[in-house]
Amino acid sequence: MSVTPALSTAGPGAPLKATTIERRDLRPDDVAIDIAYAGICHSDIHQVREEWGASIFPMVPGHEIAGTVSAVGDGVTTYQVGDRVGVGCLVDSCGECEYCRGGQEQFCVKGAVVTYNGEGYDGEKTMGGYSRQIVASERFVLRIPDGIELDVAAPLLCAGITTYSPLKRWGAGPGTKVAVVGMGGLGHVAVKFAVALGAEVTVLSQTTSKKDDSLRYGAVDHRATSEESTFTDLAATFDVIINTVSANLPLDSYLSTLKPNGAMVNLGGPSDPCEFSAFSLLAGGKVMAGSMIGGIAQTQEMLEVAAEHGIGAEIELISADQADEAYDRVVNSDVRYRFVIDTSTIEA
Amino acid sequence: MSVTPALSTAGPGAPLKATTIERRDLRPDDVAIDIAYAGICHSDIHQVREEWGASIFPMVPGHEIAGTVSAVGDGVTTYQVGDRVGVGCLVDSCGECEYCRGGQEQFCVKGAVVTYNGEGYDGEKTMGGYSRQIVASERFVLRIPDGIELDVAAPLLCAGITTYSPLKRWGAGPGTKVAVVGMGGLGHVAVKFAVALGAEVTVLSQTTSKKDDSLRYGAVDHRATSEESTFTDLAATFDVIINTVSANLPLDSYLSTLKPNGAMVNLGGPSDPCEFSAFSLLAGGKVMAGSMIGGIAQTQEMLEVAAEHGIGAEIELISADQADEAYDRVVNSDVRYRFVIDTSTIEA
Repeated sequence: MSVTPALSTAGPGAPLKATTIERRDLRPDDVAIDIAYAGICHSDIHQVREEWGASIFPMVPGHEIAGTVSAVGDGVTTYQVGDRVGVGCLVDSCGECEYCRGGQEQFCVKGAVVTYNGEGYDGEKTMGGYSRQIVASERFVLRIPDGIELDVAAPLLCAGITTYSPLKRWGAGPGTKVAVVGMGGLGHVAVKFAVALGAEVTVLSQTTSKKDDSLRYGAVDHRATSEESTFTDLAATFDVIINTVSANLPLDSYLSTLKPNGAMVNLGGPSDPCEFSAFSLLAGGKVMAGSMIGGIAQTQEMLEVAAEHGIGAEIELISADQADEAYDRVVNSDVRYRFVIDTSTIEA
Repeated sequence: MSVTPALSTAGPGAPLKATTIERRDLRPDDVAIDIAYAGICHSDIHQVREEWGASIFPMVPGHEIAGTVSAVGDGVTTYQVGDRVGVGCLVDSCGECEYCRGGQEQFCVKGAVVTYNGEGYDGEKTMGGYSRQIVASERFVLRIPDGIELDVAAPLLCAGITTYSPLKRWGAGPGTKVAVVGMGGLGHVAVKFAVALGAEVTVLSQTTSKKDDSLRYGAVDHRATSEESTFTDLAATFDVIINTVSANLPLDSYLSTLKPNGAMVNLGGPSDPCEFSAFSLLAGGKVMAGSMIGGIAQTQEMLEVAAEHGIGAEIELISADQADEAYDRVVNSDVRYRFVIDTSTIEA
């Protein structure tokens, strides 16, 4: 066991306090990582505040983790000390089911082990990245290519793969038009990846306040959804809509902006039921899909694409004592565009 | 012009009465067809009763048409007199847009011309298959292969392609499990095609009253959706669900029976909004899609597959004077499984 400082919350909505936690002794396939940066994902807040069903407390959140390898188990072949690496939302899976074999560990039949607020196959509770160190099997450790700084790479481990995966699945690329709904932590990364994949990108946001950013990240247009004319102007325009908004939206209006065969992919989970007219999908053979994170191999691919295209998250770097305030600001959409904790400031 | 007997309705919900209508003189690309059989599709009833917005009256319904070629225009190369042919839901499209060029005439940018209750590009109202003759461009005439009788082929022109197209798009085939929801005019054909494509098929129906039929058509199971245990027993089972029911269903329950990456395709259009939880799609990267008919080339492919596998609709053959009663029976789900009008009984 090693002891490492971490930010922990005692119960639903309780503040994040610096404490120490234990990390397991290295198993043969384990990699120990000195964490440099941990992104704050909106799902951290949902789980800390127990908005997604029962959580496990005390909780150390964080699944957007970037750092360097500090030690490796005897059997590790992929990494060595000093390598720049990351850990995302998953730290284990059965490795044997059709989904694990197919590179979709998130759908593991046995149940993939999440990086925090979960339980390992050994029965130990998992503790996440708001911490100075983490230990994980090399199978779930990603290589962060040279050319991406670790701080802007950290959010890619969740926000990056969460947006990249559906863009790939639904065919975003040259000759396609992609709409990104919501210009926040996920949305701004979705814009960058859709542009990198060669699509023509339009941002659909409540207002035009972030239009300059959209265009800077490569979008060709940014339209306010508060304007009625936006939806009529954009009728039958898009091949793919990536919806990053967690609130309930007027789905029929958005579906009307899809071309025939087009797909709207929802990444957020509003608590009220979603409503749509069956005819919004019928007439154009349209698709509404969900997507959540992605597999390990595709996460590595996403990092390579990010490095190739100079993609990182736009971040506001904070110290450990600013994390609670950052949570409130995320809920108020008051961040451009992702908070990242400098984990060296966690002092237990 | 030629004059031909037809069953026509004067206004919303008015009875079908034998009368005569005119068919145009043959254009160079036109085929004149002596109609032998016309299927009754539920959408005929919706349009006759004006349940889908304003209809055009007088109306001759019918887009499940089978017969033989009686004459061809000067430029026709594909068909000759005596050929066994069919006409489905479409009789024209622009032929030039990306969808027409891609074999998806149903999405024609100019607007495909529907077989009845529509208007041709020449401004003439279209009149459908409850008639002794029809004239259509050879581009929209299908060849009915030897080995399918014309009466059981007629319903394939709509019910066949409507179910075949989404089965193909969403990958039904060997090694996949397909659920067909609703065992009616569309459902029973969906079962036959899914089986022909090599999938393992389960029918989900309100009761088990049609179980024997499901098994006879090749399904491996038939489960009653009125039993709570059906949905828990079938959790994460299916790759594809073909939903042929037009009523609102508890979508979350059905989505729970999909495997990760699985797709539920809705073919019916309930009038109330559809409701689902975003999480039902998110967690498994699942898909909800719509589908409506299919393109001409795929319709021809469907007919070839039907011939190869001996697939026809299960029909109840009626005479023209039974059509109104048949409508009521369709609405009451009192038919196994498709009414087909013997058009030789239409006497004006």
